[in-house]
This record gives sequence, structure tokens and C-alpha cells, in this order.
Amino acid sequence: MLRQDFASWMGTIQERVESALDRLLPPADLIPQSLHESMRYSVLGGGKRVRPLLAFAAGEAVHAEAGRIERVACAVECIHAYSLVHDDLPCMDDDVLRRGKPTVHVQFGEATALLAGDSLQALAFQLITDVPLADRAEEQIEMVRLLAHACGSRGMAGGQAIDLDAVGKQLELPQLEHMHVHKTGALIRASVMLGAHCGAGTTQQLDAMDHYAKAVGLAFQVVDDILDCEAPTATLGKTAGKDAAQGKPTYVSLMGLQCARDFAQELRDRAVAALKPLGDDGRRLAELADFIVLRKF
Amino acid sequence: MLRQDFASWMGTIQERVESALDRLLPPADLIPQSLHESMRYSVLGGGKRVRPLLAFAAGEAVHAEAGRIERVACAVECIHAYSLVHDDLPCMDDDVLRRGKPTVHVQFGEATALLAGDSLQALAFQLITDVPLADRAEEQIEMVRLLAHACGSRGMAGGQAIDLDAVGKQLELPQLEHMHVHKTGALIRASVMLGAHCGAGTTQQLDAMDHYAKAVGLAFQVVDDILDCEAPTATLGKTAGKDAAQGKPTYVSLMGLQCARDFAQELRDRAVAALKPLGDDGRRLAELADFIVLRKF
Repeated sequence: MLRQDFASWMGTIQERVESALDRLLPPADLIPQSLHESMRYSVLGGGKRVRPLLAFAAGEAVHAEAGRIERVACAVECIHAYSLVHDDLPCMDDDVLRRGKPTVHVQFGEATALLAGDSLQALAFQLITDVPLADRAEEQIEMVRLLAHACGSRGMAGGQAIDLDAVGKQLELPQLEHMHVHKTGALIRASVMLGAHCGAGTTQQLDAMDHYAKAVGLAFQVVDDILDCEAPTATLGKTAGKDAAQGKPTYVSLMGLQCARDFAQELRDRAVAALKPLGDDGRRLAELADFIVLRKF
Repeated sequence: MLRQDFASWMGTIQERVESALDRLLPPADLIPQSLHESMRYSVLGGGKRVRPLLAFAAGEAVHAEAGRIERVACAVECIHAYSLVHDDLPCMDDDVLRRGKPTVHVQFGEATALLAGDSLQALAFQLITDVPLADRAEEQIEMVRLLAHACGSRGMAGGQAIDLDAVGKQLELPQLEHMHVHKTGALIRASVMLGAHCGAGTTQQLDAMDHYAKAVGLAFQVVDDILDCEAPTATLGKTAGKDAAQGKPTYVSLMGLQCARDFAQELRDRAVAALKPLGDDGRRLAELADFIVLRKF
């Protein structure tokens, strides 16, 4: 059971992020319209906003200004949305359903989907450079640097390439973890760290959040694998059971369902333990770890 | 005739940029190897390096440190390379030949080409945030901001979307210019301005270079259209006559060949005139304007 207070905090942040994204994305009637419509379609009106929630929880833990956190939250969500648009393309996962709606290329065509993803990546970097986000400009450059590395060939995009290479192959657990550390872990870590950099945390606090983020990022993926084999498509809002059908290795296929569940719980415990140096300020981050592990969609 | 001194400067910069890109791109044997190989394949060993040359000419005009200019030169070239990789994909121009070699998706597959482009965009932002590039960190954030806007839906990617929408349509000259200002102009302008921001130019000098960059960017495209209808595929290193065959409007199709040539010359003159406030320091930029208009490939 999630505490009422946390559920209400989460709802407030989700609404705030939705409204900020609506404001910060180019308007749908601006030329080129099909591109701007497709960008808005892919980002707005759906998603759990896990990465923005992590950015807010981390930023609040170091008493950062909410306006700053909002910017980085929108930036990481744009990167996430771009990765989904490109991941759904026919040359990648060839998926037709996302968040219960037709995927972007189904709705707008492949070329527009490609450009929407490209533009969303650029937009993320616009969002975190258009306004001051840290007390010192050097700190803000470090934030941009973190995000750029999280997205690149040694981060998220690299993880997707490792994933591609893994289809139909027999992976061991360490290789599966290596893939997920990149594919989903890098951006989750960046979400936490960018949120944290909006405030004036100590090195010890930043390190604590980094350890937390690594464990939570992996937990997120393990739970994703569990849900992919358990939940019906309607609940998930995307095609369920697809990884197994494509012969992709998952935590469930390698460990079995019960062991995967235990592993997710262990990662949750590890994440929460890492927050110790933050004291009560780490409360939202701990609650988010629970939310990530207990979620049903 | 280009002056010998300019030809030798250009050769030196091109070699320097090639060697820097080779050093700054992830090594080919780093996992995921196919991704890193494809990134290197798309960037190294070809291209006129027009954007890096513009960055160097602008940086040198304000006596910037060469090491800083090298970074921004590599960043804009990574963005350019990413745009070519995505532009060549089957869902876009579906081209099989680039710089005389098979395009990236022909060589490595579509999924890897998609991820290579995505990763190159991220790499560009890594390159301009990994090290200090300006006297003040605020100035460097402004550089990142310029690049992010140049790449996005109101810059290069937007220009490609306008281009997509234009296939088979009857465009007038102002609309054609609007497309090119975004599609090629935005990144050319960013190349000049990022180079200029590496030094300590006055506002007047920066404005002069911005005016120069707008004219040169358009001249570049007009000459591209002329070459596309004049030059054989072997000289061009890419499929010639393709725009006309696809029913895409070009400066030649709208103005006729001779008028397009005159227009390119007029833009060259406008670009050179804009450099007046720079005095002799604007020499390389002026020579580059000539190079861009006189090139045969």
C-alpha cells in the first residue's frame, strides 16, 4: 500500500510535468505542423512519468527550486519519449501500440516519427540550456554533460544496440544486466542526478543518490520483465509478452518468476539503504523505489 | 582560382579535424562494436568538412584557441553526419550511396543506422560539454543552446520535415528559402557562431559573422542544387539528379540554371560584405565563401 501522502505528491508532480511539457513543447500549429503534432502526440497525455518523478524526488531531497527541477524533468521525459518513438519503428521493435494508442509511425508515418525522435533529443538539450538551472554555470554544464553521456553510445543508445545484438542469443545474467544498465539504467540515473544537481547537495548526498539510482534503474527493468510476462496488453498499454515471443532474454526467462520477484525486492532494499546519508530528506526517493517495485503497469 | 595560401590552410584544418574526430569518436572495438563501427564509418574518411572549416575561420577571426575550435568543429560535423545517416534511410531519401561509399544502413542495417545517428547527436553534446570551451561558463551554455536550437524542430530537423512535406508540391521561392534556412542554414550558422564564441569577439563582430553565415548557408544550398543538376554521380559521391527525379523543387527548377548561378554569386557578395567590421581578420571567412560558391563537388 502506498501512503496517501505519497500518492497525492505523485499526482501533483505528474500534473505539473504534464502542464510544463504542454507549455514547453512547440505548439501544434507551428510549421512544420506534422512534426510538431507528432512530437506532442508522443510526449503528452500518457506515461507514468517515472523519470520526472525521480528528478523531483532527488531535487526535493536537496531543497532545489521546483522551477529548475521542472526543466530537467521535462528534458529527461523528452529523451525517454524520443527513445520510445525510435524503438517502436519498424526497423527496431516494429510495435504498433504504445500507452494504449497507435505508435507515432503508425499515426504519422515513419519519416515523421524519425524526425520527431531526433527533434525531441534536441529539445531536451534546449530545455536545459534555455534558462539558468544551477547556482554556478559550471554546474549546469556538468548537468548537460551528464545527460549527453546518458543518451549516447555508451549510455541509452548503446544499450539499445546491445539489445539488438542479443535477439535470439543465449545471454547470461551479467550480460543482461550490462544491457539494462545502459538501455534503461543510464537515463534513470541521469534523471536522479540532474534533479540532484538543481540543488546544493554535498558530494556525500550526490553519491548516495547515485547509488540509489543504479539500484532503482535495475529494479525498474526487472519489474518490467515481470509485468511483460504477467500483465495483459490492456493493462500494460503496449503489446505484452513480446520480449519472450521475440526470443529476447529477460530476468524472468533467466531466473524464473519467483527469483525475479525476489531480486526486484532486493534491489529495492539496496536502493533504500543507499539513501541513509539523506535522512528524512530521502523519503520521496524511498517511496518511489516502492512504487517502482510494486507497480502493476 | 583559390589562393595557394588558402588551399594550404584548408588542407591543414581538414587533416586536423579528421585526426580529432578519429580520436574523439568511440573506438571501433568498444562494445557495442557494430554501433561504434557505424558511427566511425559515417563520420571518418570523407566529406569536405565545410562546417568545421567555417568554425575554424570564425574562431580564428576572433583569435580563439585552436583546441577549443577543434571541439566545436567536431561537434557540428557529428551533427552533420547524423543528419546524413538519417536522411539516407529508406523511410527518408532511401539513398544507397554517400561520399562514394554504401550508405550506413546499406552497410550496417537500418536499426544500427538509426542508433548511429541518435548516438552522433548525443556525442556532439558530449564534445562541447566535456571540456571548458569559453572564458566564462555562461558563454559555453550559450554555445550548447545555439547548437541544440540549430538541430531541433525549429532548425535542421524542422527543415527536413518541411522538405518531406514539399515533395511533389509546387513551391514558390520564399518557401524554398524558408526550407533551406532551416534544413542546411541553421547548422551552418551554428558552425560559424560556435567557432566565434570560442574567442572574445565583440557584439559587432558576432553580428557580422551571423549575417555572413546566413548568406553563406543559403549560397551553399543554391550551389548544391546547381551541382545536383550539373555534376555526374562519380564527382558528387552521391546519387546525382535525385531531387529533380523526385519532383523536389530546387533553385535550378524554380529560377533556371543561369539565374541560380547569379543568385549564388550575389549571396557570396552579400556574405563578404557583411564581414567588413572584421577587417583583415575576416579573410578566411571570405575565402571560404568563395570556396563554397566555386566548388565543383
